[in-house]
Amino acid sequence: MLQKVLEEGRKAADAALERVLPSATQYPVSIHRAMRHSVFAGGKRLRPILCVEAGRMIFQSKVVRSKIVQSKIAESREESLPGIEQVGAALEMLHTYSLIHDDLPALDNDDLRRGRPTCHKAFGEATAILAGDALQTLAYETLAQIPCPPASIVAIIREIARGTGTIEGMIGGQVVDLEAERTKPDLSTVEYIHRSKTAALIAASVVSGGIYAGGDEADISRLRTYGQSIGLAFQIVDDVLDLTQTSEQLGKTAGKDAAAEKATYPALFGIDESLRKADALVKQGNAEIAAYGEAGSTLSELARYLVARQK
Amino acid sequence: MLQKVLEEGRKAADAALERVLPSATQYPVSIHRAMRHSVFAGGKRLRPILCVEAGRMIFQSKVVRSKIVQSKIAESREESLPGIEQVGAALEMLHTYSLIHDDLPALDNDDLRRGRPTCHKAFGEATAILAGDALQTLAYETLAQIPCPPASIVAIIREIARGTGTIEGMIGGQVVDLEAERTKPDLSTVEYIHRSKTAALIAASVVSGGIYAGGDEADISRLRTYGQSIGLAFQIVDDVLDLTQTSEQLGKTAGKDAAAEKATYPALFGIDESLRKADALVKQGNAEIAAYGEAGSTLSELARYLVARQK
Repeated sequence: MLQKVLEEGRKAADAALERVLPSATQYPVSIHRAMRHSVFAGGKRLRPILCVEAGRMIFQSKVVRSKIVQSKIAESREESLPGIEQVGAALEMLHTYSLIHDDLPALDNDDLRRGRPTCHKAFGEATAILAGDALQTLAYETLAQIPCPPASIVAIIREIARGTGTIEGMIGGQVVDLEAERTKPDLSTVEYIHRSKTAALIAASVVSGGIYAGGDEADISRLRTYGQSIGLAFQIVDDVLDLTQTSEQLGKTAGKDAAAEKATYPALFGIDESLRKADALVKQGNAEIAAYGEAGSTLSELARYLVARQK
Repeated sequence: MLQKVLEEGRKAADAALERVLPSATQYPVSIHRAMRHSVFAGGKRLRPILCVEAGRMIFQSKVVRSKIVQSKIAESREESLPGIEQVGAALEMLHTYSLIHDDLPALDNDDLRRGRPTCHKAFGEATAILAGDALQTLAYETLAQIPCPPASIVAIIREIARGTGTIEGMIGGQVVDLEAERTKPDLSTVEYIHRSKTAALIAASVVSGGIYAGGDEADISRLRTYGQSIGLAFQIVDDVLDLTQTSEQLGKTAGKDAAAEKATYPALFGIDESLRKADALVKQGNAEIAAYGEAGSTLSELARYLVARQK
């Protein structure tokens, strides 16, 4: 079941990205080729999948609440939320822009990403900087065109902008991550980095799906806690894999955290304790969505997958 | 009169930026100091001023259309559109992010901007890249919180994202600008660069003000043409000043277009012909807003100022 969700979710996300990204022949071609190079590099599309599945869970639970027969749930899976993939595409573009800029020589200076040359290796630094900028811009242009009530669009944009901003969002996490290199990491710094750099956008992904599906305040609050917990677990496992897997297995340079003396969970607690922490976080996240019963089963499976994955 | 508009508009824009930008003591401090360094470097705040004045013009013309007495117009100037300065702040943050990235070593490699060290000179490249990213993010977060109907917010975000995007927006112009260096420029390339790199965001600025004020389709269309014309004139004059003024007068490195063999109007037509073209464009732009009579006088003056300025 989960393999099907991951596979079909990835295809749906790719199709949505194909619809919103300018073609490789659109003038000026260099920037569009660079954007597409990084976006279509074979990502797992976890953020779009989490967004869409969170939306489906809320939609299905509303169907149940409104007492429409249970048999409707299965078919509602396919047609319930037309256009939600566009939100997923925006999330994936934001994630990709952060990877492009993170890989630049002035930041992590990485040559390999998802098994291919990084954007600046393939297109030069100037184009890579602008391609990252452009993916961020296109993400907001895409969000401003999703087919849902304007008040929901505005709420989604606010959520995603905060999740990628400097205070407790992605950029804040990147900044502290860079500054914590080669310093003795403490738990509160490591937690800030992980929560901000990764978990905030993952939380924004599921919350956006929930807003799109018309979730109420209680829904949004549960999704936020679920997203923060599994997002933190995701980053802990990412850092463990960086230590235990090869570059070939990961499709990106392995062992670079240790080389750069990054502030990570495994650096602080070791691998076993880190994995225990990740497991506990997944249980915590899943407890939040237990209230949705069967409708929440896919999100629960996704959470367990995030800590069990090998790359 | 115009001096007062420029001076008070600048102050109002600065105050709005102060309200939305995190303080220099907000964790993580390095990114917020870098963002503030570039935002509070003494810009003229032309985009916010154009946005606010376009909004006022539409608001005042609606007051006249709805037959409220003329004497109301003067006082309406001050209190007509609470919160529109937030739109201006978002526009200025987007403009500033583009300057920070444009100044990076991989792009224009400039040490001086508005008379101060550029962001990467003061804070290092990594922080400058992230500060630019963060200003773009904060611009959209700010727009998602402006006090106007959600449908207007969405329309403004779409307009601004297009004006700063890759197809016919700011990033597209930057890309072609970089690629046209050291090639023989032709008119269509120079026009694409100027229209996209500069005029598109200036047009988005006045159009956003018009949307904020509740302008109808005809209003928006007039504002768009006005903005595109004066935006193109603005860039032509900018390129002439780069040739005729000193770095000290400009507060940024002069003569760098010629040094980089940039594709510009003066490079193609010479200074006199370029200035005649700029004048004609201002007349064209002002013809569009002649329909607003007295309510449009500030925008007309602003247009003339853009070509008469010496820095």
